[in-house]
Amino acid sequence: MTPEKQSSLKMFFEPRSVAVFGSMREPGGEGLTVMRNMLNFGFSGRIYPISRSAAQASGLKAYPTVGDVADPIDLAIVVTPPPTVLPIVEECGRKGIKAAIVATEGFAETGPDGARLQRQLVETARRYGMRLLGPNTLGVLSTDYGLVTAPYSMGHNKPQSGGITYCSQTGFLTFGVHPIKDIGYAISKMCDFGNKCDVNELDLLPYLADDPSTTVICMHLEDVKDGQRFIEAARQAVARKPVLILKPGRTEAGARAASSHTGSLAGDDQVYENAFRQAGVIRIRTWREFWDIPKTLSLQPLPKGNRIAIVTATGGAGVMLSDAAAEFKLVPATFSTTTRSQLGRLSPRLGNNPVDVGPMMSVREFPFSVYDDVVPTILSDPNVDCLTCVCHLGPPIVKVFTGLAPLISNIGKPVTILGYGIDLPEMQESVRQLEALGLPTYLDLETAVKALGVGASYSRIRARLEEDAG
Amino acid sequence: MTPEKQSSLKMFFEPRSVAVFGSMREPGGEGLTVMRNMLNFGFSGRIYPISRSAAQASGLKAYPTVGDVADPIDLAIVVTPPPTVLPIVEECGRKGIKAAIVATEGFAETGPDGARLQRQLVETARRYGMRLLGPNTLGVLSTDYGLVTAPYSMGHNKPQSGGITYCSQTGFLTFGVHPIKDIGYAISKMCDFGNKCDVNELDLLPYLADDPSTTVICMHLEDVKDGQRFIEAARQAVARKPVLILKPGRTEAGARAASSHTGSLAGDDQVYENAFRQAGVIRIRTWREFWDIPKTLSLQPLPKGNRIAIVTATGGAGVMLSDAAAEFKLVPATFSTTTRSQLGRLSPRLGNNPVDVGPMMSVREFPFSVYDDVVPTILSDPNVDCLTCVCHLGPPIVKVFTGLAPLISNIGKPVTILGYGIDLPEMQESVRQLEALGLPTYLDLETAVKALGVGASYSRIRARLEEDAG
Repeated sequence: MTPEKQSSLKMFFEPRSVAVFGSMREPGGEGLTVMRNMLNFGFSGRIYPISRSAAQASGLKAYPTVGDVADPIDLAIVVTPPPTVLPIVEECGRKGIKAAIVATEGFAETGPDGARLQRQLVETARRYGMRLLGPNTLGVLSTDYGLVTAPYSMGHNKPQSGGITYCSQTGFLTFGVHPIKDIGYAISKMCDFGNKCDVNELDLLPYLADDPSTTVICMHLEDVKDGQRFIEAARQAVARKPVLILKPGRTEAGARAASSHTGSLAGDDQVYENAFRQAGVIRIRTWREFWDIPKTLSLQPLPKGNRIAIVTATGGAGVMLSDAAAEFKLVPATFSTTTRSQLGRLSPRLGNNPVDVGPMMSVREFPFSVYDDVVPTILSDPNVDCLTCVCHLGPPIVKVFTGLAPLISNIGKPVTILGYGIDLPEMQESVRQLEALGLPTYLDLETAVKALGVGASYSRIRARLEEDAG
Repeated sequence: MTPEKQSSLKMFFEPRSVAVFGSMREPGGEGLTVMRNMLNFGFSGRIYPISRSAAQASGLKAYPTVGDVADPIDLAIVVTPPPTVLPIVEECGRKGIKAAIVATEGFAETGPDGARLQRQLVETARRYGMRLLGPNTLGVLSTDYGLVTAPYSMGHNKPQSGGITYCSQTGFLTFGVHPIKDIGYAISKMCDFGNKCDVNELDLLPYLADDPSTTVICMHLEDVKDGQRFIEAARQAVARKPVLILKPGRTEAGARAASSHTGSLAGDDQVYENAFRQAGVIRIRTWREFWDIPKTLSLQPLPKGNRIAIVTATGGAGVMLSDAAAEFKLVPATFSTTTRSQLGRLSPRLGNNPVDVGPMMSVREFPFSVYDDVVPTILSDPNVDCLTCVCHLGPPIVKVFTGLAPLISNIGKPVTILGYGIDLPEMQESVRQLEALGLPTYLDLETAVKALGVGASYSRIRARLEEDAG
């Protein structure tokens, strides 16, 4: 990617100033809603409402045209009726704006007329060297900049800042329709490709590979515009950080639905499967995994191998987790004699993996102290690459892991927690507290180990790429 | 099952009177906790605390021995230290009690000594014609009777009454460690087999097949005691209601973990797979599916075929759901010309399946009214067997479905809802409200269609069994 292209991509996620085109009418004007969301999220740059009718909006001075703004503008956000979009793009081009998000619906997704209008947008933007995201998009979200461009009210839904970046070709996998704050995902950026008329995966992959605040790249794609260039861009990104892709249309029915949704040909799934393998991309197969796996890659180090230990307060969970681990290419760690004798000193029934600490807990005055004894012993074993801990969620376990977190972080092997309990709000609060300690916590059994399996896969892919390169 | 055996099984779930053996010490005595849970849940029978030291417990008169109770007793709940259990079982036998739950841990799961003690329990019980559940169990829960026997505090976790019955060989899949009330499962009964020294799946299958308040039987099994009798019992149950079984130990690592957990040989998985197929049991593969699929079978009628329609407010979800439907043996319904023309009158872009109502919603004054128009049209189509609806959760959609529920129920085809939104507590509240209308609502994409796929599978199995019989 040329430095120039890279810098216009930056304008989408790190703008110092934005112009907003859209209805400024109270209460629900789309332009007004965009601005309100940004003000709520604490946008760090300047906002210029553009309106022929309003003198101000949300307390900010409005300008009749973007040409009336004296300062330079990095990003335009357009959410006006379809026929007005083309002249606005033209106006933005003349102002020297290099990035525009067209949120407006009613282009290629509606038929041939919309497609023609969409092509005119692209041609106009190209004349001015401007990049376009959309149309038919919620746009972007960037936690570090307090930037959010959704024309729907986002309410309290500002995620915490972290390393995960999500890009999606459907609004259904973006910030507008998922409780990202309540679930506690730690997000760097999000991007809805919309109709993908210009900015697409070929732009985002190199930009995100370079982006220091993104540690894991997650993309939902219904199609790929240019297979060869995609493989090249993905491969380069994979050399630097994990790239997880959810590509539906795996089945004939799914492919037909995709073609009617985006108008693009989904293509033979085997072709995608091969391309992903060549590029070192990890393919994600379900909605839940797309949302829940990345947090482990973002919060924890990568496992150096695929040998998993399981510590569980209930033997039954250990059995199910063992199945899931095997299905995701993890093998049960065989503990060293040192570990076995250390565990044996704690209780004659300990020593096997999974480590069932349940019986020990029931005879201790402070049952949760079992984890204090067992977790460091097991994590220090050279035969162990990663660990899943099954715990009853609540204040006692949060206290235990508050003590253990620095040690876990020092040892440098990834840990996930599978939590259970009977009080859902309390469980969700514990999840947030444990993740604030850097410990990814799952309420879904299989995902707790699959996340480690994906980490181990990425370690293998990295090693292979380094071998190929060296 | 003989009427006598059947009636002692009833004593476990429908007792009119229970004796509780366990510490009555304030605040956390196990016997006291069992009684408190039952009083909280509104147990409809009489409770007799048995204690040599206390004169009363939780406001109830205590008795030094169960022999001192004049009235007959249906069920004993024992949660005393291991060495005291055998004399208590003997004492219960002499009193004529026909059912005892031994919650106490420390039997076969601890080694040969425990196994010997466990065998003695069984021999003693048999002498008196008494059935034993456990040991090492949370016991049972029965919503209709307000019965719960967990020796841990169950707090507010009383589920609502409904048709799902869960049996499990691990505490991890029972009422003690899952927020069954907060998630809103509608439960008939739950049973933790514990060490399965006596009462097991061979007892529960015929009992639950006969039980009028159970509409779907869900079992977690780590082993099956008697393959041939299991197949026969399961087949007879399947002829009357769906039987879903989660059997871990599918992989070598899982089988090894199971054997170290329950001491039993998990056996070759292919043998189980064949047995389940022969019996018409539907095998469940993940923790989430075990919890979340049954509610559709319990709340909705069975689909008569496997043709699914998808109505979605977002095209991207339609694509992913189409993949999931195909993977779970559902095929996309091809709408009749009547349906297509009715949909076409609503919007020229409607008519394909999945039905993407998103664009129509964005131009309506009351966007959610789209569902009022579309759902009845599609459900009435003779080419449609079942429907998944993708909706933004919140008060508007609850209002829409409050109106639609009687019509959906009249048409008699199963409907599931896949819900999304940005405010998790609000979403969970909508789930509870929609399920109170009888509409199973999922926050997990694939499960929303897989639940219909399982229903369609059961319809095929039933048809096959009826053919075989007739």
